[in-house]
Amino acid sequence: MLSPVRLFVTGGTFDKEYNELDGRLFFEDTHVPEMLRLGRCRLELSIRTLMMIDSLDMTSADRALIVEHCRAAAEARIVITHGTDTMVETARALAAAFPPDAHKTIVLTGAMVPYAFGSSDGLFNLGSALSFVQVLPPGVYIAMNGRWFPSDRVRKNRETGVFEDV
Amino acid sequence: MLSPVRLFVTGGTFDKEYNELDGRLFFEDTHVPEMLRLGRCRLELSIRTLMMIDSLDMTSADRALIVEHCRAAAEARIVITHGTDTMVETARALAAAFPPDAHKTIVLTGAMVPYAFGSSDGLFNLGSALSFVQVLPPGVYIAMNGRWFPSDRVRKNRETGVFEDV
Amino acid sequence: MLSPVRLFVTGGTFDKEYNELDGRLFFEDTHVPEMLRLGRCRLELSIRTLMMIDSLDMTSADRALIVEHCRAAAEARIVITHGTDTMVETARALAAAFPPDAHKTIVLTGAMVPYAFGSSDGLFNLGSALSFVQVLPPGVYIAMNGRWFPSDRVRKNRETGVFEDV
Amino acid sequence: MLSPVRLFVTGGTFDKEYNELDGRLFFEDTHVPEMLRLGRCRLELSIRTLMMIDSLDMTSADRALIVEHCRAAAEARIVITHGTDTMVETARALAAAFPPDAHKTIVLTGAMVPYAFGSSDGLFNLGSALSFVQVLPPGVYIAMNGRWFPSDRVRKNRETGVFEDV
Repeated sequence: MLSPVRLFVTGGTFDKEYNELDGRLFFEDTHVPEMLRLGRCRLELSIRTLMMIDSLDMTSADRALIVEHCRAAAEARIVITHGTDTMVETARALAAAFPPDAHKTIVLTGAMVPYAFGSSDGLFNLGSALSFVQVLPPGVYIAMNGRWFPSDRVRKNRETGVFEDV
Repeated sequence: MLSPVRLFVTGGTFDKEYNELDGRLFFEDTHVPEMLRLGRCRLELSIRTLMMIDSLDMTSADRALIVEHCRAAAEARIVITHGTDTMVETARALAAAFPPDAHKTIVLTGAMVPYAFGSSDGLFNLGSALSFVQVLPPGVYIAMNGRWFPSDRVRKNRETGVFEDV
Repeated sequence: MLSPVRLFVTGGTFDKEYNELDGRLFFEDTHVPEMLRLGRCRLELSIRTLMMIDSLDMTSADRALIVEHCRAAAEARIVITHGTDTMVETARALAAAFPPDAHKTIVLTGAMVPYAFGSSDGLFNLGSALSFVQVLPPGVYIAMNGRWFPSDRVRKNRETGVFEDV
Repeated sequence: MLSPVRLFVTGGTFDKEYNELDGRLFFEDTHVPEMLRLGRCRLELSIRTLMMIDSLDMTSADRALIVEHCRAAAEARIVITHGTDTMVETARALAAAFPPDAHKTIVLTGAMVPYAFGSSDGLFNLGSALSFVQVLPPGVYIAMNGRWFPSDRVRKNRETGVFEDV
């Protein structure tokens, strides 16, 4: 009687890698499946990578694509991994498209430190987002710092890197 | 408007260490505060270590102590870290003491691999348990494998190490 | 003009794993190739696993086998990964078989913490042993704690876990 | 009868950190003491940080400072942690200042991946450099990829990130 969950990957710090030849950060494949194995996650989950970008580079066309995929998903419960810098903006675009009577529970999450860098908050946040998505009522939310926020009552504090109530 | 959460530590694989002199596993201090820092957790949390034991060594007196501390806690929302082997048994002892009208939401969680061993599911499970405890209705639950289970409808499959519905 | 190096794996703490079903430590495959990749090692190295055992379980027949493989190796430079508890004993068995005029430089090394547990001294020791083996004159040595010791002037201090001069 | 070793820190990839607020890499304190603890290193070592810079930013004044500190060091054996991009250039500046009859054995090493990113070659290289410095004759060397190179017969291959013979 587990509800199936859809997981969309969009990139963000979560999935950044270190290029040892030029010392820059870049994107390659997502680490989400490895993180789910590590977490011994046994949800009925299907994962799809929509894009692999820094959220500062995300355009309104990218956001429209994310909305489109959420609409097309058969699942009522959706988690989206996303860069933290514009996560709130994407959450609001989703909230406009999915009012509560759309019967979709959508949770965005991300990380402050790349998973590949060994001390990431990503594993904690992924466990958190996958849990909230199973029990929160329809709506669009952000799961960061162990908390959940409705999409219209949250901001990222750029001084501290912490998500907080508006 | 965050609900405060109480976190009780009882030991379990979560907190096992490797003794490099004799090659055995042992308990020292809990890693939970470090894991919460790593997860950038910003819940209003107070942590207390009740015991540091392997759950196979947990007695009914130990379980009575856990029940007692849950009763004495001012918080309505409680997470307990616990060894996986007898987690279900402790959950049932708690469920007997806290029917839904006791207005306590209690979530037990643990790990299959010690946090100190670097590839632990503990961080994922801690994120998960702290999320479920904020939104599930009063009752006693287990959070493992990304899922939540009511205390009376769960068992640990000893062949696979996975928690499953009964 | 790199000298080829032979690496024999015998097990030891180096290669211990955590069995998440019963909480015991056990041996599976060696981590040495992964560690060499991580260290970006570019020596001309051939690796062979002779046994995967705790050095407390090593018999004189096991030691004879190690001596035999060192004798049969075409390489003049050999590193052996080994449990620390009886490393000195094996080093002495090798020294009896390979006097300096046997033209073999043999370096034993190990770890106090399993590599799989994330905070291992194994990577440091492996870098150390592979370096010493390239430049020390023929003889049998132990490389631990950043130091090298001739096989007849070393012991493991069991109180501290540190190798020291005799 | 251990020879004391001096270790000079100059920065490089070895010591880069991830700034979780802006996603950039930066320098803070060196990780070398922590790495030595992890490696259970028991050499008689004194560590001094001379600078914390990317080696691409190293000037001839910086190199003169490094030479000066090597000259002033009482120890005959010196390890220098250094960015890989201009490590060869610094090695040559040192070789010009310390001919073999200066009775100094100087070994430079570095890393391709920051230690803080969890999968670093730094621990392996540090074990390697500290070993080579104890046994190589007076001269200036680079220890990378498990190998040692005289300062005048080495280059970094920028395509592969590997140090190779010239």
